[in-house]
Amino acid sequence: MKRILYVIVLLAAGLALVGAASAGDPLPSWNEGPAKQAILDFVKATTDQASPKFVAPAERIAVFDNDGTLWVEHPMYTQLAFALDRVKTLAPRHPEWREKPPFKDVLDNNLPALAASGKRGLMELVMATHAGMTTQEFDQIVTDWLATTRHPRFKRPYTELVYQPMLELLGYLRANGFKTFIVSGGGVEFMRPWTKKVYGVPPEQVVGSSIKTRYELKNGKPVIVRLPEVDFIDDKAGKPVGINKFIGRRPQAAFGNSDGDLEMLQWTAAGPGARLMLLVHHTDSKREYAYDRQAHFGRLDKALNLAKRRGWVVVDMQKDWKRIFPSDK
Amino acid sequence: MKRILYVIVLLAAGLALVGAASAGDPLPSWNEGPAKQAILDFVKATTDQASPKFVAPAERIAVFDNDGTLWVEHPMYTQLAFALDRVKTLAPRHPEWREKPPFKDVLDNNLPALAASGKRGLMELVMATHAGMTTQEFDQIVTDWLATTRHPRFKRPYTELVYQPMLELLGYLRANGFKTFIVSGGGVEFMRPWTKKVYGVPPEQVVGSSIKTRYELKNGKPVIVRLPEVDFIDDKAGKPVGINKFIGRRPQAAFGNSDGDLEMLQWTAAGPGARLMLLVHHTDSKREYAYDRQAHFGRLDKALNLAKRRGWVVVDMQKDWKRIFPSDK
Repeated sequence: MKRILYVIVLLAAGLALVGAASAGDPLPSWNEGPAKQAILDFVKATTDQASPKFVAPAERIAVFDNDGTLWVEHPMYTQLAFALDRVKTLAPRHPEWREKPPFKDVLDNNLPALAASGKRGLMELVMATHAGMTTQEFDQIVTDWLATTRHPRFKRPYTELVYQPMLELLGYLRANGFKTFIVSGGGVEFMRPWTKKVYGVPPEQVVGSSIKTRYELKNGKPVIVRLPEVDFIDDKAGKPVGINKFIGRRPQAAFGNSDGDLEMLQWTAAGPGARLMLLVHHTDSKREYAYDRQAHFGRLDKALNLAKRRGWVVVDMQKDWKRIFPSDK
Repeated sequence: MKRILYVIVLLAAGLALVGAASAGDPLPSWNEGPAKQAILDFVKATTDQASPKFVAPAERIAVFDNDGTLWVEHPMYTQLAFALDRVKTLAPRHPEWREKPPFKDVLDNNLPALAASGKRGLMELVMATHAGMTTQEFDQIVTDWLATTRHPRFKRPYTELVYQPMLELLGYLRANGFKTFIVSGGGVEFMRPWTKKVYGVPPEQVVGSSIKTRYELKNGKPVIVRLPEVDFIDDKAGKPVGINKFIGRRPQAAFGNSDGDLEMLQWTAAGPGARLMLLVHHTDSKREYAYDRQAHFGRLDKALNLAKRRGWVVVDMQKDWKRIFPSDK
């Protein structure tokens, strides 16, 4: 009898422990493994006052790339899909586009020709579709497009194709006093309308590429007008520049997925104390996509080599993530 | 007897009320008057959930100009005093400056000649003294200069020549959930090293003018180098542009003191709901300075007219402020 009681007590204690552990797991969509452990260790080291690597709460800064790190970037960057749709929407007002590449290529769905137009062609598309309206009008255009458009493969709004494990990571860092910023090559005004709702990141914590703008009075009403001229490209070596310009201090943690994030991780790594540099490696063609060194969007080549040399964390999406999207079971 | 008790109770209640009111005054250095009342009314309207003008805490944004609004800008902008000192410090390494205006004018203390060199001359000085080093080196140069330099009239460090009533206002707005930003024509990297300590405003909430920077590896170590090329001028119509670029949303409250702040206040005023636009008018030559329409630094002319037309709050430093600096009795 005593023995049975003993076993029951042990079982109850065991169950209680399991319950406590799972209730307390801040990263439930992450499988146990070195990536998850590195995150937990980093947060412990920076937030434990007894740790030599403790960071004062006001100085805790974490930066996240967006495309491919927080949301899907295949079969093409979401903002590019937006630009192509905008060309089609605006085409009736621009009959000249029917004969003029790269607009013609978009209207003909001739993606190889479009790709051949290179960066210059893409820039022309962006300028034609992202400029010439007020910032408020552009906000509305983006909001409407995201509300009505579905991803070609997953048939869901793009804002639902965000990575559940990364949402947990954002929340976990914030719960531990980190200010979370997005530092993306994407357009800052393409992201700001929805990052608060989707990621919990307010507009003032979004850094991205931008075109120039001009303040003016339009019928006596102040507006800010978007101009067809590049202001800042927040990619590659532009990322640490953008971090310095918009945030004004070096982050302790940086999260990316491509060669466009290399310099941001390098800049983060070069600071003192505890550091966390993490790359999301897209290895899961079944649940999402598998790509790296040869990819057109989100190429991960040099940064993967550097991560291996420097011991940065590389997340294997297939192995490390229990779920990909919030809607996954 | 009953009557005496009654009087005692009333007196006690009265004293308690006075005590509560003075202990609870969030703006003790502000004299009672329309300026103080407008601030209190604005905060009440935006933070009271029952108010039709309630603003959700996450959306409460207040922007402050720096020179002349938060700290002294006479007899010249502090950053200009810094640039002139830097010219003198660097002169031994630049023998050619002895013969070359505007450097020659600085070395000769020939301020009229310097003023005659205009914006172009000043820009030359800034580029020669603010560029060519890493961001970290520049931070140290600014920190050292501020620690060792005294204001010519008040004989105190510039960081002590901040306005006590405005410090209280910053704190009061933050205590009510407002995120406080600086939006200054001054150089962003001239301000960021000290705004947290002096104003409680962290680097990532400082918007200002900037020169271009470049990320590079220097002996294998990542650095950001300051380049002699203007990136962004955060003044006049540049202020709403800077607010949109760095903050990404329209503030509910804006504080300035000169024509350089006109568009920022205009942009703030054009939003819906409760709005607070306030200009600090320098009217106190005894305790600080008196200047407005004719001033070389911090000219307040058009904005003063507009404030009167629109009913924006104009602070009369002499009448509205009990104390100017934290060190005042």
